[in-house]
Amino acid sequence: MSITRRSFFGAGSAAAALAALPKSRIAAQETQPQVKPQARPEAVLKLSSQLISDLPGRDLDEKLANLEKWGFDGVELGGDAVGREKKYADAIAKTKLAASALCGGACCANGHLVSEVVAKRAPAMEKIKRVLDTCGELHLTGAIYVPAFNGQTKLRNKEIRKILVDTLPELGEHAAKAGTRLIMEPLNRREAFFLRQVADAASIARDCHSPGIAVMGDLYHMYYEETSDLGAFISGGPYVHHVHMASAHKRVLPGQDERQFVDAFRGLKWIGYHDFCSLECGVQGDPRVEIPKSVAWLRDQWARA
Amino acid sequence: MSITRRSFFGAGSAAAALAALPKSRIAAQETQPQVKPQARPEAVLKLSSQLISDLPGRDLDEKLANLEKWGFDGVELGGDAVGREKKYADAIAKTKLAASALCGGACCANGHLVSEVVAKRAPAMEKIKRVLDTCGELHLTGAIYVPAFNGQTKLRNKEIRKILVDTLPELGEHAAKAGTRLIMEPLNRREAFFLRQVADAASIARDCHSPGIAVMGDLYHMYYEETSDLGAFISGGPYVHHVHMASAHKRVLPGQDERQFVDAFRGLKWIGYHDFCSLECGVQGDPRVEIPKSVAWLRDQWARA
Repeated sequence: MSITRRSFFGAGSAAAALAALPKSRIAAQETQPQVKPQARPEAVLKLSSQLISDLPGRDLDEKLANLEKWGFDGVELGGDAVGREKKYADAIAKTKLAASALCGGACCANGHLVSEVVAKRAPAMEKIKRVLDTCGELHLTGAIYVPAFNGQTKLRNKEIRKILVDTLPELGEHAAKAGTRLIMEPLNRREAFFLRQVADAASIARDCHSPGIAVMGDLYHMYYEETSDLGAFISGGPYVHHVHMASAHKRVLPGQDERQFVDAFRGLKWIGYHDFCSLECGVQGDPRVEIPKSVAWLRDQWARA
Repeated sequence: MSITRRSFFGAGSAAAALAALPKSRIAAQETQPQVKPQARPEAVLKLSSQLISDLPGRDLDEKLANLEKWGFDGVELGGDAVGREKKYADAIAKTKLAASALCGGACCANGHLVSEVVAKRAPAMEKIKRVLDTCGELHLTGAIYVPAFNGQTKLRNKEIRKILVDTLPELGEHAAKAGTRLIMEPLNRREAFFLRQVADAASIARDCHSPGIAVMGDLYHMYYEETSDLGAFISGGPYVHHVHMASAHKRVLPGQDERQFVDAFRGLKWIGYHDFCSLECGVQGDPRVEIPKSVAWLRDQWARA
């Protein structure tokens, strides 16, 4: 054994974490029986996309028109929607799209809500509340929230969890009053060690006892952190209110590598999921060809789930 | 907000952790559709019990005879079996029982395998290997292993996980050669913050890439830490090789409070579980009456799953 404490600290740790990711996943789901659990009637596949850089269109209107044309039901907004609510509401109103969720910008508050510097926490609460106001105004399912990316807090996992259970209910109440939610997103360990599995996020949401506190699953991160997409979404249960989608390796369009979504979609059907599944990815090839192809692939995976 | 770092440390933290446990669980599983996923044909309920202090019998032979009479299939051994292999093998051979797993004693090595004191780790490896030898000799499904009870290591969760993924494969190889396994057990936060959910343990087992490294679920701890027993066991999948059973509140016999096992047993059927489900609990009332009643209750829960 040549393990030393030193190897867990400092510059080497990011590389070590990367090396620790399994190259190909030997997932429990691959050995699950291939039977279909009965879907709850309310389960529905509603496709959304972030305004990804590869999305064709000279301006917002053209981008939204393309999403609508290709069969999307919703659009996920970025942090720049805060303060520009009218711009987005007006543009979306010209289409049949709905706004799905908000991702990025001030919502994660740079991890300050769980900072070891106590003085940073109250301003973070206010920033997050401001984002939640935008989400309410635009009728979004919620604002996506990563408690702490790696390096954003010096606190231990146990301390971070306690702060969340103590403080998220206030944000949850604010969100619920605005008609929206704060949605915790588990990431893979390269981006955030604190929260990596849907079941863990769901247990935090449960302990918050607040209808405004929810969780999501990102099928890119889940590929690395979950042993079963089905198990993860069943554990997420009624707390799951958003889903991100991308391939496993280059984080491009669903269907552009071997990553399958059938098991995940079985989980969503099982829990009666009826919020959005949204693209957060790049595109390999011509987006005007590849995005519609990915939509068809997704609908096929849903049908087979 | 009156959150201070101080409140996460020191004598107050155990009480705080206790207070943080939900009094009654609003579990995802309670809102799951009540349909039965198809069981895999190999799934079977094999009941085992620890040699709990409430088990009637003047000596080992009588205790084992009672377990056999009441319909148990196996017996779970304690740490005292190490060095007394012949005593237990001979006693068990007089019955139709099988030995299920080994719990306690030197197997967890006081958390030394993940200690911040590097010098403690190698001796811990040797202790655990010795326990695994006993498990192999007695044909046990495995030795139950808690990486660190609260207070047994100063390392952070991320550091503990890295040590496990680096060192468990060597123990897994030793276990596999002996025909047994090292079985990680998630506990509730009052006992161990590091490992609390079956999906988290399963992801560590997966990253170890060793058939000798497995996980288990304890239905007492799961009541507090999981949002769905079904989701947890599906995530555990092929890594699950032992189950502990007790009621939720006083940790007495299954069926002695409102804790239901149907959802958990659905999960075990789903993954084709065929190892033991073992009592680790006290008894309320007369054990000669209550233990057979609990056996009947468990078989009924299994039939309904």
